[in-house]
Amino acid sequence: MTTDPSLRIGRIPIRHLYPVQPEGLWPAKAFVGEVIPFIATVFREGHDIIGADLELTAPDGNVSVHPFPHPDKGVDEWRTTARVTKQGLWSWRVRAYADDWATWLHAADLKIAAGVDVDVMFQLGLELIGRALAGTRKSAKTAPLEVLKTAFADTAGDPTERIALAHAAAVTDALSTNRPISLVTYSDSIPLLVERERAGYGAWYEFFPRSEGAVRAADGTVTSGNFVTAQKRLPQIAKDGFDVLYLPPIHPIGRTNRKGPNNTLDASATDPGSPWAIGAAEGGHDAIHPDLGTVKDFEAFVAAAKKVGIEIALDLALQCSPDHPWVTEHPEWFTTLPDGTIAYAENPPKKYQDIYPLNFDNDFEGLSAEVLRVVELWISRGVSIFRVDNPHTKPVHFWEWLIGRVNATHPDVVFLAEAFTRPAMMHTLAAAGFQQSYSYFTWRNHKWEIAEYLTEVSQKTAAFFRPNFFVNTPDILTEYLQFGGVAAYKIRAALAAMSAPSWGMYAGYELIENVARPGSEENIDNEKYEYKFRDFDSARANGRSIAPYIGKLNAIRRAHPALQQLRNIQLQHVDDDAIMAFSKYLPGSQTDSGRPDGVIVIINTDPHAVRESTIRLNMDLFGLPNGTQFEVIDLVTDTSYTWGNDNFIRLDSFTEPAMILAIAYPKGHTA
Amino acid sequence: MTTDPSLRIGRIPIRHLYPVQPEGLWPAKAFVGEVIPFIATVFREGHDIIGADLELTAPDGNVSVHPFPHPDKGVDEWRTTARVTKQGLWSWRVRAYADDWATWLHAADLKIAAGVDVDVMFQLGLELIGRALAGTRKSAKTAPLEVLKTAFADTAGDPTERIALAHAAAVTDALSTNRPISLVTYSDSIPLLVERERAGYGAWYEFFPRSEGAVRAADGTVTSGNFVTAQKRLPQIAKDGFDVLYLPPIHPIGRTNRKGPNNTLDASATDPGSPWAIGAAEGGHDAIHPDLGTVKDFEAFVAAAKKVGIEIALDLALQCSPDHPWVTEHPEWFTTLPDGTIAYAENPPKKYQDIYPLNFDNDFEGLSAEVLRVVELWISRGVSIFRVDNPHTKPVHFWEWLIGRVNATHPDVVFLAEAFTRPAMMHTLAAAGFQQSYSYFTWRNHKWEIAEYLTEVSQKTAAFFRPNFFVNTPDILTEYLQFGGVAAYKIRAALAAMSAPSWGMYAGYELIENVARPGSEENIDNEKYEYKFRDFDSARANGRSIAPYIGKLNAIRRAHPALQQLRNIQLQHVDDDAIMAFSKYLPGSQTDSGRPDGVIVIINTDPHAVRESTIRLNMDLFGLPNGTQFEVIDLVTDTSYTWGNDNFIRLDSFTEPAMILAIAYPKGHTA
Repeated sequence: MTTDPSLRIGRIPIRHLYPVQPEGLWPAKAFVGEVIPFIATVFREGHDIIGADLELTAPDGNVSVHPFPHPDKGVDEWRTTARVTKQGLWSWRVRAYADDWATWLHAADLKIAAGVDVDVMFQLGLELIGRALAGTRKSAKTAPLEVLKTAFADTAGDPTERIALAHAAAVTDALSTNRPISLVTYSDSIPLLVERERAGYGAWYEFFPRSEGAVRAADGTVTSGNFVTAQKRLPQIAKDGFDVLYLPPIHPIGRTNRKGPNNTLDASATDPGSPWAIGAAEGGHDAIHPDLGTVKDFEAFVAAAKKVGIEIALDLALQCSPDHPWVTEHPEWFTTLPDGTIAYAENPPKKYQDIYPLNFDNDFEGLSAEVLRVVELWISRGVSIFRVDNPHTKPVHFWEWLIGRVNATHPDVVFLAEAFTRPAMMHTLAAAGFQQSYSYFTWRNHKWEIAEYLTEVSQKTAAFFRPNFFVNTPDILTEYLQFGGVAAYKIRAALAAMSAPSWGMYAGYELIENVARPGSEENIDNEKYEYKFRDFDSARANGRSIAPYIGKLNAIRRAHPALQQLRNIQLQHVDDDAIMAFSKYLPGSQTDSGRPDGVIVIINTDPHAVRESTIRLNMDLFGLPNGTQFEVIDLVTDTSYTWGNDNFIRLDSFTEPAMILAIAYPKGHTA
Repeated sequence: MTTDPSLRIGRIPIRHLYPVQPEGLWPAKAFVGEVIPFIATVFREGHDIIGADLELTAPDGNVSVHPFPHPDKGVDEWRTTARVTKQGLWSWRVRAYADDWATWLHAADLKIAAGVDVDVMFQLGLELIGRALAGTRKSAKTAPLEVLKTAFADTAGDPTERIALAHAAAVTDALSTNRPISLVTYSDSIPLLVERERAGYGAWYEFFPRSEGAVRAADGTVTSGNFVTAQKRLPQIAKDGFDVLYLPPIHPIGRTNRKGPNNTLDASATDPGSPWAIGAAEGGHDAIHPDLGTVKDFEAFVAAAKKVGIEIALDLALQCSPDHPWVTEHPEWFTTLPDGTIAYAENPPKKYQDIYPLNFDNDFEGLSAEVLRVVELWISRGVSIFRVDNPHTKPVHFWEWLIGRVNATHPDVVFLAEAFTRPAMMHTLAAAGFQQSYSYFTWRNHKWEIAEYLTEVSQKTAAFFRPNFFVNTPDILTEYLQFGGVAAYKIRAALAAMSAPSWGMYAGYELIENVARPGSEENIDNEKYEYKFRDFDSARANGRSIAPYIGKLNAIRRAHPALQQLRNIQLQHVDDDAIMAFSKYLPGSQTDSGRPDGVIVIINTDPHAVRESTIRLNMDLFGLPNGTQFEVIDLVTDTSYTWGNDNFIRLDSFTEPAMILAIAYPKGHTA
């Protein structure tokens, strides 16, 4: 071997390591508890047998070694999986080696059977045994090697019987620590950033606090909801299994050019305005809208949420109403026109006169420092998640800077990017720091496009882009939901909650609010511009709410660790072109309980029909041998079935459009 | 803007630069004269218009700037091409910028038409004109900007007429050097290794010098051909348009366990043996087989070849016969068994007793230095191309070392890898240094698989892997050739010569030598083990040789620069599933002559049939507007046609299975 440092390839080539980010500008990402596929191309010249290990170093310096299983013959891509269990910067590398024992044993078997080089092969075997025993003390474990040594040295013995001894399980076991290997080669060390669990796994709920507990008097006057009244809904949201509650901006709302109901330009004095038109005399991004309460009220709200297991996510919308204090204090953070006015947001020739966009290029340092101050202020008030509004309208390097700075001192803080834009921007924002991203999920409604998208997010982009599958938002009420009835709402919730470890919904979804403003993909009488008075409890009592269904979905997610992962989605084949199916699986070695977990999800994406078909399962993908039978329990209906590779299925969108089948693994199952 | 050095993304993100090698371990490769696609993902926040330039730095430090054309709306991948004309290490980077003028003009057009912000838009326009004029001297070129300035300042003028002036060609031209831009952002600088033309473009011929001029007497005794007799074939090979003549090993051949005819184990005293069993009492890799002549003869042969425009490629087969001097002088370069013998090459339980493989791990430095000495010795004897036998049975890092060392002092030396093995090894050898590689071409015989392979080599792997499309070798006589008659030989030659800038054939191909050793894909009575007595001239005279056809193919390649490129292959659609078609094109700006060059190649891959079909051309791909008519000349038959998008074709494999259509571009064509 040579150690010429100018060479870029090692003695045994190790290439194309994964996970890495494309271009490697930032470490690949994972979250605590995630099971990561590790992949490398490893090969060598000639036909000698090689082996490879994954060496995984935790943030505390603890190293674990995971031998790669040998790939199929003719394949040079080595794959294994490992679960990362601690937050922080991990690193990993691949160790490849010539497996001298396996190479010799393969040749010895063939040559001794053919009567070729019999003595030489045993002598070579003895040399290898000698290497295995060198420097080890005699023990019960090494005893089989001593036996083998004696047999190999016994030239009078039957060669076939002597070589057969080398295959004994005790020999293999004895060699597990002292295997004779050579040409050990290491890859570079690759960083892997493991963020906290909530960066990758969680159920999100969104509500406008001003609507929660808002009261409309008989004369039509409205008393706004506030943090005290909104607090009352927290226990039910928690019971329904949500982990995060996202609040649209809670800051004072501008009065200049305030928008009225349905985005009209003539707001009346009583219209509350859009929370995204941030800033008024009462303050800007660091202030709380007086209608919602005080900082103390907010902190109490955050604490009450925490008590029932809910984290509060705040909106970070970096834009200002014309009344924002920054406008007068820092005109340099905006664009001033030759006539001395500040430029509105616009899509020429249209102008948005309730909003001034920020200009990051006049005073990057000043504006950035102020945003950092605002973010840290909210962190100090108990916020650890920020849902960032339209990050794709601000410079990417600003987000890299901000998230890097915040996470350096607050590694638990999670940023969710609302960047509904082209892939290059969407992916770069995620790559440069955002822990989560809104996704194209809402617009993937046909089986084929859902399948394609699940494959993309679970495989192609999973090392840096974590989608949060929101089923609706105040901005998005898709045609599919508008016209698919209750079935559509159940289908989309089941799809999102089962396929993605992070999913979310905006209040009203459970009430099947599906009337759009004509010609748009937004709810009519949009909550962005007015109060909503929803009676969740009576809807639930009267069966007009799917909240219980959604609660069940979230409970299933919590009970099944396989559903808390993104990268383990495996599509399964259904003949029908609207019924889609996938399975998710974790072996017992990768769950906290030590029990394997497997779920098969089958969803009729056609909300208008009963469909019957056959599902053809690849059982390997959930750890069972093909050709056998196994028990499943449909967690939606609590019905059990005995299944095999091919199974008849019938999904009635008017009753239950989704089957969620938990696999009952036999006791002691370890695959 | 910020200049925080910890940020990995620039003000305007520039990502996914191409060409680069996967992993970036080594520079991407090109060859002199090659037209390279340069690609980058460039985008910014919001909707402002950006621009991007390719800055290409030649080895002499000369920088050329190539503005990227704007991609289609919604696409963030910017693409252009540039031709590299000098050997050496180039570098390139992308310069992105906010195109303030274009952003303003777009908004101004819309807003002035809508009567919105009219005065402000003209004032902004004046500011931009001011920036364009700042620091420039008044000249004829800047005059249009002065005119525009006056018009913009004339608030009494008609706004529609005033803004229309901004679109004048003279204004665009005036702004070509002083365009108001901002936020200029550079990508990293990316290396690009440009090797000499022959690294990527050339026609190769292979013969065994011992057969060329070999004479069999009436009594069966053979007088070997040698460098003097072989020299006589050089002029015809040159006339047939070959650039490189590759010789199997010319060294002394071992006698121990010498192979006889058809790879038999019982060679007689008169059997010449395989040239790949290198080394005998007469010497090893640095020696010449006495039958072939002296070093002086060899040097005269090289000089004679050079005189007719042919370079000699030598075989570098790093293995030894048991009689090689290294065996006794350097037993440490081999593997010694416990019984004291040296290990033969083997595929257990089979052994190859005429060959000892080298072991690079015992004394890497010593063996490497010796191989380097041997290579440099042959370089000093006039060799500048090495065809490397089975490089995939030696450590990859050895090749990285050897080729790096050789090219450091001899940048013109080209190494061709004969690595018929799995993609990971094949690609890594190319990536780590080999200038050319044998390919899977011989085993891609159906239209669909040829199309797939051409796409792979011309696009996916073109930044590091240059295939040499050999149509046959002494080791490869495919079933397709065995059973396809003359048509198969013409089809494969036309396919190779037209699609790949590097192609090659082994002597006998032109004589349709298509009888295999039964059960093998090798010629019967293989030349590896015996002399061949071929009468090329009388075969030619009697029409039994396709050498004239091959000569025509090579002449067409030389006349058409578009055919000297790999990356410009564009598949064209033919309805028939056996007729394949592709076009190759270079605009006039990328040819030496300044004239555009376009060729359409249509080949019937079915050697047993006459096929008729329709070809549906995408004329954009060769620089002509779709929907127009154009003239083509079939260079095989010298027939002219007037063609358009859809054309009837008829290919008769029993006469001419291939059409090679040169496009007659109208005078002054510049697309």
